[in-house]
Amino acid sequence: MCDPVRVTVKGVCVTETGDGVLAPVVIMEDDGHRLIPLFVGLAEAISIHQALSGDISPRPTTHDLFISTLERFNAKVTSVLIDDLDGGVYFARLEVSVDSDHREIDARPSDCMALALRSGAPIHIKEEVMSEACVDKEDLGDLKEIGDYI
Amino acid sequence: MCDPVRVTVKGVCVTETGDGVLAPVVIMEDDGHRLIPLFVGLAEAISIHQALSGDISPRPTTHDLFISTLERFNAKVTSVLIDDLDGGVYFARLEVSVDSDHREIDARPSDCMALALRSGAPIHIKEEVMSEACVDKEDLGDLKEIGDYI
Repeated sequence: MCDPVRVTVKGVCVTETGDGVLAPVVIMEDDGHRLIPLFVGLAEAISIHQALSGDISPRPTTHDLFISTLERFNAKVTSVLIDDLDGGVYFARLEVSVDSDHREIDARPSDCMALALRSGAPIHIKEEVMSEACVDKEDLGDLKEIGDYI
Repeated sequence: MCDPVRVTVKGVCVTETGDGVLAPVVIMEDDGHRLIPLFVGLAEAISIHQALSGDISPRPTTHDLFISTLERFNAKVTSVLIDDLDGGVYFARLEVSVDSDHREIDARPSDCMALALRSGAPIHIKEEVMSEACVDKEDLGDLKEIGDYI
């Protein structure tokens, strides 16, 4: 079994699905320039986009509130691991720590990304998942910036 | 200054706004049958509806993850206070506690309701806000069940 690979979130885009519906998709990339597109809900897409662009919402988003609540108890998101892909659904583990006390919680990758980006926490993907899900740039299709839609 | 009043969340509905757009609205009621409609985002509306109806999402929603993270650190949401209304925007305080250590965090009422309903925590509104924002039942307009739309 290989070590998990670290990825960066390259951007949040909108793509047209087969049935003509516009869907938000997050693009992640590892050091070897392998790309993973991950379809997410609109609210999570907007939250990830805000975290990437440094936009500050006039009122705290759910993920902002999550982070500020953790901070009030000296807790923080310390890492994220996308560890499974089953039937088209990705699974992830959110690691939250208070000093040396680390806890892992079952979570959706979209929440994990929105929280990790706000915390500066690293995002890793299991190599098996990366190998299975990575695509070539040409296969990403016609991506549009989500900023043009929100 | 009067004590804050306790409210219950009666339901999550969809109503047509003046410009013909459908908007999710949460209806709260106090013991005196005064009603407050509160417009919320779609993601928060769905989350509040799930909490009210006891629906369990196949994967944890953001609010589910929030609660399970708090639980892993023996923390819980212990109360919510909607304490201001300014320019049509409601403000709230989320109280999170670990044993006798209580912290209040600035939050949107929609997040507070989604979290309080999952925790069995009471929701209060400042009397001044209640007096200003409460409406008669007839003024709620034509409300439809959000369950018919999601």
